[in-house]
Amino acid sequence: MDFKVLQSLLKKGMNTKIVLLVMDGLGGLPIVPGGKTELETAIRPNLNALAERSILGLQQPLLPGMTPGSGPAHIGLFGYDPINYAIGRGVLSALGVDFDLQPDDVSARGNFCTVNENDIITDRRAGRIPTEKGAELCNLLSENIKIPGVEVILTPEKEYRFVFVLRGPGLNGDVSDTDPQATGKKALQAQALSSEAKTTAEYIQEFVLQANEVLKDQTPANSLVLRGFSQLPKWPKFNDVFGLNSLAIAMYPMYRGVAKLVGMTVMPAAQSMEEEIDMLEQKWDEHDFFFVHIKKTDSYGEDGNFDAKVGIIEQVDDLLPRILALKPDVLLVTGDHSTPAKMRSHSWHPVPTMLYSELCRPDGISEYGERACLKGSLGPMFPSYELIPLALAHASRIEKFGA
Amino acid sequence: MDFKVLQSLLKKGMNTKIVLLVMDGLGGLPIVPGGKTELETAIRPNLNALAERSILGLQQPLLPGMTPGSGPAHIGLFGYDPINYAIGRGVLSALGVDFDLQPDDVSARGNFCTVNENDIITDRRAGRIPTEKGAELCNLLSENIKIPGVEVILTPEKEYRFVFVLRGPGLNGDVSDTDPQATGKKALQAQALSSEAKTTAEYIQEFVLQANEVLKDQTPANSLVLRGFSQLPKWPKFNDVFGLNSLAIAMYPMYRGVAKLVGMTVMPAAQSMEEEIDMLEQKWDEHDFFFVHIKKTDSYGEDGNFDAKVGIIEQVDDLLPRILALKPDVLLVTGDHSTPAKMRSHSWHPVPTMLYSELCRPDGISEYGERACLKGSLGPMFPSYELIPLALAHASRIEKFGA
Repeated sequence: MDFKVLQSLLKKGMNTKIVLLVMDGLGGLPIVPGGKTELETAIRPNLNALAERSILGLQQPLLPGMTPGSGPAHIGLFGYDPINYAIGRGVLSALGVDFDLQPDDVSARGNFCTVNENDIITDRRAGRIPTEKGAELCNLLSENIKIPGVEVILTPEKEYRFVFVLRGPGLNGDVSDTDPQATGKKALQAQALSSEAKTTAEYIQEFVLQANEVLKDQTPANSLVLRGFSQLPKWPKFNDVFGLNSLAIAMYPMYRGVAKLVGMTVMPAAQSMEEEIDMLEQKWDEHDFFFVHIKKTDSYGEDGNFDAKVGIIEQVDDLLPRILALKPDVLLVTGDHSTPAKMRSHSWHPVPTMLYSELCRPDGISEYGERACLKGSLGPMFPSYELIPLALAHASRIEKFGA
Repeated sequence: MDFKVLQSLLKKGMNTKIVLLVMDGLGGLPIVPGGKTELETAIRPNLNALAERSILGLQQPLLPGMTPGSGPAHIGLFGYDPINYAIGRGVLSALGVDFDLQPDDVSARGNFCTVNENDIITDRRAGRIPTEKGAELCNLLSENIKIPGVEVILTPEKEYRFVFVLRGPGLNGDVSDTDPQATGKKALQAQALSSEAKTTAEYIQEFVLQANEVLKDQTPANSLVLRGFSQLPKWPKFNDVFGLNSLAIAMYPMYRGVAKLVGMTVMPAAQSMEEEIDMLEQKWDEHDFFFVHIKKTDSYGEDGNFDAKVGIIEQVDDLLPRILALKPDVLLVTGDHSTPAKMRSHSWHPVPTMLYSELCRPDGISEYGERACLKGSLGPMFPSYELIPLALAHASRIEKFGA
């Protein structure tokens, strides 16, 4: 829905409550032909009972056949078309390490790499150096690099990966990658893609020069490449667009980061799913929209551990009565994307979704699973960003259009 | 479908006949969990028998979660995307009281209201004055207000509501509301939103000044506010766009008004559903598209009277054989939106729809109801404005695209 039309229709002073329960990577695949998915395998009496009182469907995070990363997938669930509201790679990397990005910061995803005597990249991952080595190199660079006028902040990620942040006045992220994303090539020059980014590109080139000098005697990580220079996007805030007072509850930095990016209030990291529900109960009276993120469905999917993913879904089923006891006006249950254990990765498959509300017109389906959702009134491939407007409607928060 | 593409494909000289039967507010909700909707409850042998020879689905009047007023909902059924073809609030109000709007007229929705000694609005509805009082105040204003160069015509609606029409040469509706749509504020100045509307805004401000003078000693309706200044839209006409010679048959002003707005020939108000079908029979040879509007499904839905709404659907079922006896090439049966008795209001829920034609590929569904339509080939959430192109195709009125 167009934000402007929607905003003109939002009812004032409503206190109805919406819960968005996201099991990350929920959608799955059968391991053997004719078999069941992870969700279909799980013993899930509470989810199935809720299905009888809900509308169901399969949502599509992006476009047919497109596999989303965690960032875009959540942006869609938050009601923004993730193709139009794209987050830069650098910003996503910073969110993933819980980095407190400031509005003017320019961030990028960095790789330590190996170059030969002619500066040709021979390994884009520097032999997958240990995580400790990556952290040591970040320290070494931080101590030795000085660029007048700006601060460079390097945060190690796993192995050869790090987050690059440039902080200072008047920066602009419209700069081309130095990472050619191929071996057998030299690193590229960082170039300003608009006149506003000229100084920023010069700072980055200065950083690259100094960094190569610092790293030149290291083995195998004797150079680095950067990609996805970007700044925090200046988007309309979730609370303003949808007239909500939102709270995000999640265990991992990326999800708290994406929630913060759209302006949600974010709880400190929970240590378990149970603690996430504790937080939901404690904060119930203070907010009217709650994003609750369950991570481990995705983690076990990525591990290829079908049974463990099934187990997490069963734990969520056990926790569901605690959420329902709060009497939300609308409860959305979905995933951000599919992560079939069979594929050990994110995938493009549509995501089983249900919307419960006293005001929904139940589909008469008594199961929450991929094949069951296929028969639901939300359809087999609706855009994920339609969920929030639908939830608002079922929470009696949207006025009639026209007379 | 794009009008230009469609128009280029229209067959000439066809005399096939299409009936669009609209039960206003048809879609419903079960009163108790697991129960049936109004339509599902109705004894409807003729509708169910027709379903077996039809294609079915649930249409969405606007966008997911958006509840339409009667105007936009009908514009969609007439084949226009109601978000892009929006009707001004003033025009809708004028249509609702059967006012014969002229192309240059500027109309607005008016409220009598109460203001305190500082001109602050304390009640936007002036204590819901009786309808007779509203009419008396409209007369009083009409007798006392003189604005050289233009005519002001006030038509009372229910209680505190009235329709404001400004008539004269060179008017333009691009003027901002005086209604702040909140209490605790003063009425706003009517401001020209384009240079063409400058004189119109001045006329409106002059009206407001004189009106406040006339009303000042009244209690509680001592002032008024206006909103939704607008003129008849200059849209392509239904008959031109779709190559049809259309006739509208309806009991209530709003529906005859919206039909007139898109250029349909409009029958005088029928007094009963039976008389509507009489009119259809009498005019069968003179037109090839017939919009037949049944009002009371919506009225009883708004009243929260589930059983009476069921009763109207059963009466329509009884009348269906008379329509089928005319042998329409296409019969569309739908609603303009949902009005669940449970909610006593319009709602966003998709609307059960069927398209009968000798040339359709029947879905093999032997029931016309919300849950049955969910399984149909029109899908669970198709845009209402796709119905007319589909009807034209099934009436053999669209040529092949490309060779």
